[in-house]
Amino acid sequence: MDNWILKQAYLVPNRIAVDDGKTQLTFAKLKQEVIKLSGQLKTADVLEGQRVAIMTSNSLSGYLLALAILGSNRSIVWINWRLSDEEITRQLKDSNPSMCLVEDKLWRDSFQKGFMKFSSLMRVPAANYQLVSEFHDEDVASIMYTSGTTGRPKGVMQTFGNHFASAVSSSLNLGLSAEDEWLCAVPIFHISGFSIMMRGLIYGMTIRLVSHFQPENIDQILTTEPISTVSVVPYMLKKLLTLRAQHDVPYNSNFRCMLLGGGPIDHQTLKLCQKYRIPVVQSYGMTETCSQIVALNYEDAERRIGSVGKPLFLTQLKLGENQEILIKTPALTKGYLNRSNALESKKTSDGWYKTGDIGHLDNDGFLYVDGRIDDMIIFAVRIFSQMKSSRSILQEKKLMK
Amino acid sequence: MDNWILKQAYLVPNRIAVDDGKTQLTFAKLKQEVIKLSGQLKTADVLEGQRVAIMTSNSLSGYLLALAILGSNRSIVWINWRLSDEEITRQLKDSNPSMCLVEDKLWRDSFQKGFMKFSSLMRVPAANYQLVSEFHDEDVASIMYTSGTTGRPKGVMQTFGNHFASAVSSSLNLGLSAEDEWLCAVPIFHISGFSIMMRGLIYGMTIRLVSHFQPENIDQILTTEPISTVSVVPYMLKKLLTLRAQHDVPYNSNFRCMLLGGGPIDHQTLKLCQKYRIPVVQSYGMTETCSQIVALNYEDAERRIGSVGKPLFLTQLKLGENQEILIKTPALTKGYLNRSNALESKKTSDGWYKTGDIGHLDNDGFLYVDGRIDDMIIFAVRIFSQMKSSRSILQEKKLMK
Repeated sequence: MDNWILKQAYLVPNRIAVDDGKTQLTFAKLKQEVIKLSGQLKTADVLEGQRVAIMTSNSLSGYLLALAILGSNRSIVWINWRLSDEEITRQLKDSNPSMCLVEDKLWRDSFQKGFMKFSSLMRVPAANYQLVSEFHDEDVASIMYTSGTTGRPKGVMQTFGNHFASAVSSSLNLGLSAEDEWLCAVPIFHISGFSIMMRGLIYGMTIRLVSHFQPENIDQILTTEPISTVSVVPYMLKKLLTLRAQHDVPYNSNFRCMLLGGGPIDHQTLKLCQKYRIPVVQSYGMTETCSQIVALNYEDAERRIGSVGKPLFLTQLKLGENQEILIKTPALTKGYLNRSNALESKKTSDGWYKTGDIGHLDNDGFLYVDGRIDDMIIFAVRIFSQMKSSRSILQEKKLMK
Repeated sequence: MDNWILKQAYLVPNRIAVDDGKTQLTFAKLKQEVIKLSGQLKTADVLEGQRVAIMTSNSLSGYLLALAILGSNRSIVWINWRLSDEEITRQLKDSNPSMCLVEDKLWRDSFQKGFMKFSSLMRVPAANYQLVSEFHDEDVASIMYTSGTTGRPKGVMQTFGNHFASAVSSSLNLGLSAEDEWLCAVPIFHISGFSIMMRGLIYGMTIRLVSHFQPENIDQILTTEPISTVSVVPYMLKKLLTLRAQHDVPYNSNFRCMLLGGGPIDHQTLKLCQKYRIPVVQSYGMTETCSQIVALNYEDAERRIGSVGKPLFLTQLKLGENQEILIKTPALTKGYLNRSNALESKKTSDGWYKTGDIGHLDNDGFLYVDGRIDDMIIFAVRIFSQMKSSRSILQEKKLMK
């Protein structure tokens, strides 16, 4: 495929690519900015290796730098700025980027060699630099770590092909229009946010960047700006609904839906969505699948409370052993960094990815996620232990008799 | 990927899949019909080989049978019913289908062994038959012949992956909505029509089938039914515009655009489109690329008269030797049937497909198709011959002196 940044600058040069509330950049301007930043990355020797890490809020400069990394044919290593020094060190050790670029306001005194402030980079002159002309399906665009706070970190490698498949699957479900504008208040270091950035490039769509979630601010934007779609988690949705109770003005006329990740909603919340005419599309996905792979459309929401919906067009889904949710999708990661067999070990012999979630399907094929298989196993082990204990006690009692 | 027929019956069972003006079938009902027909194909031994030919107008039964062939994991060989007996024989000899299914009204007395009327098939009882659960990217969905009236026929093999890439590329340009309905008055044996059928399955969109182009009828449908999109060629567009001059009622409110293939339009025609508020999207494509790969959006039409537009998102395009239009796209055929090197011979050493068309790009990257390279070569040869002749004459004159 052509480089998506160059392609949209060619196809829709005058359309707004990104808007942070202060600055609006067209796709043509975006291209210029990305070329300049790539030249600066070059000068600063940041393009020495194959990967560049970035630690940023949803700032315009973070967004642009991430694209400059992609445009320079390097992989982005997304660093969650909420992590401890120790966790960050572990992830950087694993991914071995040539540099970790840090937004100034997130700088920590502990950062030494291998870290660079955005402002330091901006002071560097830009070398002449030509962006790569193609994005290849198999190339790794981004790496995101999914480990918890302990254990060896697991870097999920997301390819351009994965992001493309995800964006296409989403568009086949939610629809697509040249007037679409997606509000991104979820973090871009997380797949929920980065997938919005990718959709922006693939659809030629405006991304409205918001640095952090302030309910009043989001409500205001949804009311006054032509936002068609916004990604939220249940907490955000509830906060926004509370504000709706206080406001008379409806969301703007271009508004089409809220894409909800991070768990299904309860009946009461849905009732409020209906009351305020906010179509909410619930979804299920993970870092390994580049965001949503299953979605519940608004029309079905009322009759399927608790369900995450049906597999998207490109998602194949079935239940395996112990009711584990198994999937196949071109959006599935090509693997975990430096762990050559880790993905294979999570697949069945015939190639289905084991999500680790257990679930069930109702008669019409709507999926309900019932928990983590680990929890179920832990639970089963506990029951089993208890049974054993009981038996032991019984046996002991017998023996005592 | 999941079998598209089964997938849409699962995702949007109650949405209308196809409407021929008399019968409307939901995707759920479509699935039932296709299963039944596949069972009949099985009983009639039509599924013995890997291919089934079909000769049909844009009839509902032809549409359903084509899907039954796909659903049974066989390739459709599309036979143009306008061809001579001799041409049909050549194509069938090349593709070697287990049967050629013929719509009753297109039956010819010359058809003997290897041909079967739709009505004969319908009388056969349906065996129990399970549709294939997956459509594979690399599998051949359809074969269409592109040869002229002479020479060995060239069967273009179009894979499921080709059709999917084409449908996605189109949606990224034209947009997509759950309310879309595409009017198909172009023949389904041609890629312009069959690509609409494929989009229907991929988008979960209603196809409005029209057996043949009657301007009054099409105008009526566009006015009274919720058609969003219609594919036309210049002849059809002009006929429809003539009718617009006589009618007061505008097209229905769901109408979004006319997709025009088969050559760009002149300024006068565009003026009429503007007058009647008919957004026309001009396009360029071929059987080998599963329809459009370049399109000119309506906003750009006035300033780019004569252009076919810009390459779609998945199309890579450049000009090669002699200004030949070169492309790369996942919608490109995997090859010509029984001609293992024919496609390779039409590619450059670095994998670009040589379209055989010559063209130029303006400063903003809009493509203009200037003719066939063969014609140019013929022209060049003629000029060269004339020059030679002139020289000969001169020489003769010299000699005579």
